[in-house]
Amino acid sequence: MKALVYHGPGVKAWEDVPAPKILSDTDAIVRVDAVTICGSDLHILKGDVPAVTDGRILGHEAVGTVENVGAGVKTVKIGDRVLVSCITSCGTCRFCRERRYGQCLGGGGWILGHKIDGTQAEYVRVPFADTSTYPVPAGVADEQILMLADILPTGYEVGVLNGTVQPGDVVVVVGAGPVGLAAIMGARLFSPSHIVAIDLADSRLEAAKQFGADVVVNNSREDAEAVVAGLTGGLGADVTIEAVGLPATFEQAVRLARPGGHIANIGVHGQPVTLHLEELWIRDVTITTGLVDTYTTPTLLRLVMSHQLDAARFVTHHFALDEFEKAYDVFARAGDTGALKVVLTRT
Amino acid sequence: MKALVYHGPGVKAWEDVPAPKILSDTDAIVRVDAVTICGSDLHILKGDVPAVTDGRILGHEAVGTVENVGAGVKTVKIGDRVLVSCITSCGTCRFCRERRYGQCLGGGGWILGHKIDGTQAEYVRVPFADTSTYPVPAGVADEQILMLADILPTGYEVGVLNGTVQPGDVVVVVGAGPVGLAAIMGARLFSPSHIVAIDLADSRLEAAKQFGADVVVNNSREDAEAVVAGLTGGLGADVTIEAVGLPATFEQAVRLARPGGHIANIGVHGQPVTLHLEELWIRDVTITTGLVDTYTTPTLLRLVMSHQLDAARFVTHHFALDEFEKAYDVFARAGDTGALKVVLTRT
Amino acid sequence: MKALVYHGPGVKAWEDVPAPKILSDTDAIVRVDAVTICGSDLHILKGDVPAVTDGRILGHEAVGTVENVGAGVKTVKIGDRVLVSCITSCGTCRFCRERRYGQCLGGGGWILGHKIDGTQAEYVRVPFADTSTYPVPAGVADEQILMLADILPTGYEVGVLNGTVQPGDVVVVVGAGPVGLAAIMGARLFSPSHIVAIDLADSRLEAAKQFGADVVVNNSREDAEAVVAGLTGGLGADVTIEAVGLPATFEQAVRLARPGGHIANIGVHGQPVTLHLEELWIRDVTITTGLVDTYTTPTLLRLVMSHQLDAARFVTHHFALDEFEKAYDVFARAGDTGALKVVLTRT
Amino acid sequence: MKALVYHGPGVKAWEDVPAPKILSDTDAIVRVDAVTICGSDLHILKGDVPAVTDGRILGHEAVGTVENVGAGVKTVKIGDRVLVSCITSCGTCRFCRERRYGQCLGGGGWILGHKIDGTQAEYVRVPFADTSTYPVPAGVADEQILMLADILPTGYEVGVLNGTVQPGDVVVVVGAGPVGLAAIMGARLFSPSHIVAIDLADSRLEAAKQFGADVVVNNSREDAEAVVAGLTGGLGADVTIEAVGLPATFEQAVRLARPGGHIANIGVHGQPVTLHLEELWIRDVTITTGLVDTYTTPTLLRLVMSHQLDAARFVTHHFALDEFEKAYDVFARAGDTGALKVVLTRT
Repeated sequence: MKALVYHGPGVKAWEDVPAPKILSDTDAIVRVDAVTICGSDLHILKGDVPAVTDGRILGHEAVGTVENVGAGVKTVKIGDRVLVSCITSCGTCRFCRERRYGQCLGGGGWILGHKIDGTQAEYVRVPFADTSTYPVPAGVADEQILMLADILPTGYEVGVLNGTVQPGDVVVVVGAGPVGLAAIMGARLFSPSHIVAIDLADSRLEAAKQFGADVVVNNSREDAEAVVAGLTGGLGADVTIEAVGLPATFEQAVRLARPGGHIANIGVHGQPVTLHLEELWIRDVTITTGLVDTYTTPTLLRLVMSHQLDAARFVTHHFALDEFEKAYDVFARAGDTGALKVVLTRT
Repeated sequence: MKALVYHGPGVKAWEDVPAPKILSDTDAIVRVDAVTICGSDLHILKGDVPAVTDGRILGHEAVGTVENVGAGVKTVKIGDRVLVSCITSCGTCRFCRERRYGQCLGGGGWILGHKIDGTQAEYVRVPFADTSTYPVPAGVADEQILMLADILPTGYEVGVLNGTVQPGDVVVVVGAGPVGLAAIMGARLFSPSHIVAIDLADSRLEAAKQFGADVVVNNSREDAEAVVAGLTGGLGADVTIEAVGLPATFEQAVRLARPGGHIANIGVHGQPVTLHLEELWIRDVTITTGLVDTYTTPTLLRLVMSHQLDAARFVTHHFALDEFEKAYDVFARAGDTGALKVVLTRT
Repeated sequence: MKALVYHGPGVKAWEDVPAPKILSDTDAIVRVDAVTICGSDLHILKGDVPAVTDGRILGHEAVGTVENVGAGVKTVKIGDRVLVSCITSCGTCRFCRERRYGQCLGGGGWILGHKIDGTQAEYVRVPFADTSTYPVPAGVADEQILMLADILPTGYEVGVLNGTVQPGDVVVVVGAGPVGLAAIMGARLFSPSHIVAIDLADSRLEAAKQFGADVVVNNSREDAEAVVAGLTGGLGADVTIEAVGLPATFEQAVRLARPGGHIANIGVHGQPVTLHLEELWIRDVTITTGLVDTYTTPTLLRLVMSHQLDAARFVTHHFALDEFEKAYDVFARAGDTGALKVVLTRT
Repeated sequence: MKALVYHGPGVKAWEDVPAPKILSDTDAIVRVDAVTICGSDLHILKGDVPAVTDGRILGHEAVGTVENVGAGVKTVKIGDRVLVSCITSCGTCRFCRERRYGQCLGGGGWILGHKIDGTQAEYVRVPFADTSTYPVPAGVADEQILMLADILPTGYEVGVLNGTVQPGDVVVVVGAGPVGLAAIMGARLFSPSHIVAIDLADSRLEAAKQFGADVVVNNSREDAEAVVAGLTGGLGADVTIEAVGLPATFEQAVRLARPGGHIANIGVHGQPVTLHLEELWIRDVTITTGLVDTYTTPTLLRLVMSHQLDAARFVTHHFALDEFEKAYDVFARAGDTGALKVVLTRT
């Protein structure tokens, strides 16, 4: 079969590789019908993720059709249309039983396209299939469901739920890239009074408005603290969500939260940040971090089915499966292309 | 001044009475600018509330202007435009410090138009003014704010929050009168996947759709259990809210909840109900009851200000203050008149 | 092998039956080392549980040694010492993924000694072994761990956690049988200011004191409402726990709760109860019901290991495995024998 | 009257000053019967708290007798025995209504001995007396209640409750000074499986055992990470509590928490800390900070009354009121004197 293979920093190829086989009796082999590219795939390609080695097939998001299952697979059947989630769950370890699948101690967590071959291929082997795939309801488009593989649960769980967004809140989202937009869309489900999006790019701020922000601040020329103070009687935001992954944006997110406020970090950070405990010790703040667990996938499916979430809004570009080179290029140059999520479909 | 005075079952009059005076240093005297009638006022008029005696001025909802304050009032000033809430809070007792103002042990709770003279008058004395009134922001219409005096916090706190409505839930509201509609409007803030309204009157079900229900069931000719089963894979609703106050509707609300579901009672009940513990003991249900505390008033104000809640939607009829007889008549014959909330305004 | 077999109302026998075999690849066969009898086994013997039919081996609690496992069992190994829990969990259905194992939709729930053969035997087949057994740590006695099969998680989850017991609370437990005592022991973990035990038998109330109650009330001659009022400034208890299963005791539990209080039902009820909503609608109460899920088993294991829970305190009588007739007799006549839990051990 | 007056860094005196008078109608004048010294008084004396200026009477903890009340004081009466809490609450601002009294916007918060004259005097003026004092029940010693003025609610709210300690948890407390000991005592209320105390002084670790720690680690010669790993299967602690206020100890508290764990900061920090988000972003941690609100004072009173908390255990030294110089000296040299809390009593 064909797959998108990583060959060290900066090098990838859509090339022939052996088709995956069942290695454990809880595996399923899934034919990939639709797949997307994640910001973390770009990180991997830069060489920032040492666990990914030469020869690895990338990708951790797919919608597909079950081609084969191991003898121990109980609920997933050949022919089922399934969502392949970015997080694999053994289903039996301590953390899986606490719904903290991202921290799975039994061989799961984020492994697809990372520690084992991933979804950017014609077929993918999915371990622990019963607890790591989700049935796709009839009548929903693949590309809507595909957004539930990573970006929507990440924004919703790590941003909105960890941040405990409530009706009437003033919510600030620092960073209006795809994950920040997912946080905005997820926050809107709780009817905050205001969602303030902060970014450096006007085009992203324009997108933020489409996704539900009612106030936007360009960090390069506007004063976010003054804007938030104006909305909150000078107190600060109820919830701030960091969706960039840099010290400056994290520190801004902390600064913009009110006494008693929540700061939810989604950003993938590569270096330490300074926490001003000399000011914060007395301010009653709560700071959370987290890898997505995808425990809300069934909820998000219901929200898509009932038109509470317009998941397809993320999809800006469509490609055929064998156009991975072009798709990566468009996605990597998002500033120019306006790409949020690109979808590659089996034709 | 003029006031609407209760003179025993079935008898009321808009008549001259002495203007209220400050009796305690924490009182405020408020000039009533807008006032409404509650379903409980109708109950009182039937003689169902023995605590209300001959001579009592009715009413527990108003928006007005502060005319005078006692020496101990700190934050409320003469000339302030305020919401007079149905619940009065002493601010210092155990329950008030726990935000359970409806159970105030210090002389508050539901007292206006019940144990002391109420708001259906040209002026009203409001005890514990600092903790029992809320400043009205500039730029909002009185009649919007007036809906926060009772009906919106009742639906939101006792129905939606006690019921713990969450995004993606299937929510059932039994009874689509004004309080049931408030619960529907409040539930919508949490983006449930479906809100099912149940009633006997098609006109109320039509209103329910306007307020946010996407499925309606006429109990007189449709099978609510089948409808809810169809929406929930046979499991039952995540949350059911009882907004009628009769044994049959409460028992229906219990029956429609799924294993692990919540049943939130808002209805004012006059008789016991049968609880089928022989079926329920094993079903993991949670049943809540409650009097409104109005602790969400600041949140609801923010939601109205930011257009997340269209509070004015409740207002079907307008009258001048001296048209109380007519307003009561229209409100009492809601089946014919389509009245939800009537507003009487100082002219 | 030998097993305790049900042969219709009132009839049971310790008799030869075929040894269990692996029927599904997720099964384990466990050699029973220690087993106990539950109050629900007595209910079954009276004929009150129609799902239990002639020929069924009874029992749903055991500690044992794994004799064999199916090909799909991943974490449980032959020779492992395990706790066999009263609740079987498929691990993949909606409710199992929400830790609501008692409501398992995938073939689990309470099935042992109910819908399939149980633990009162020399060997037992345990379905879904990976998610339905728990490893027994070294250095703990079988009979301590055996109390985690049903009684301790039932009291803790359905009574204490559902009732949300908090430090400083006044907690009332109605019924001081084994499950009530488990609720008392579990409540003590949260340092309530008082635990009031209510029963009709002085011997049970004496046991209640040993398990952590500091106030006892004999319902046959003392006034529980006066006692609770005296402890709570007339308000009522923060949490009441019903551990009997009769209308009168449930209604007492409701009556004893304060405004804003919680009533947690553990009792297995055979008939409806009257809920006085005409008084309760305004009192802000929360009523919960529930079947145990055993999701706290790992926590309870840690509490036993660290000597926070003295689980062995329940064990009043010891027998050999082939003394089931005698053990049932002693357990059934608890009023005379003082039996709380009887343990039968392989010798 | 006599009072302990601050005269700039390093200078204090027990000297004659004018007796306090009622300045606002919600004030009370309280005769100080028992008073203590807080670690923050030592900070003030070093000149670290610029808001405290020459002439200020120090102290924010007292038990006393009400000598006089303003006309607006409703529930506090002359002759009442009261606890004067370190936090003053206006009772009407947004934060006070949310029980976040430490952040009071209406003139309260931590003001005694800070922004206004404090309790280390024969008499003290207490603003907002109805919401800033608590009645002392009969039959409890002053010195027990005095521990509820600051240290016990600080350890309990900011450490234990913010950290969400639960039964069975492994809890680490970094720093075994008085506040750390209060956190240990408060954590014990929730029956954790282990409480690990970490400090540099063996004498403090010995005290930690008396207060409920079952494992102690001397940071100067033992490896805390290895100890915690040994107790937790290598995962890390469920909850870590920082009770020192230095970068190194905060960073240790963060490092010792497991994936999904909580880090509760109590320490008063004077400089920023480094937060290793490059490791933490993926670890699902929750970090909280906070000033005490004293909202648990009524709960703590019930726990002292019912002997769940032995508050007097903190009191190591007793003095007469006019021995402030000596008391400060003993408290400041805690390393030598073993002082935890010193109590000065009117004789």
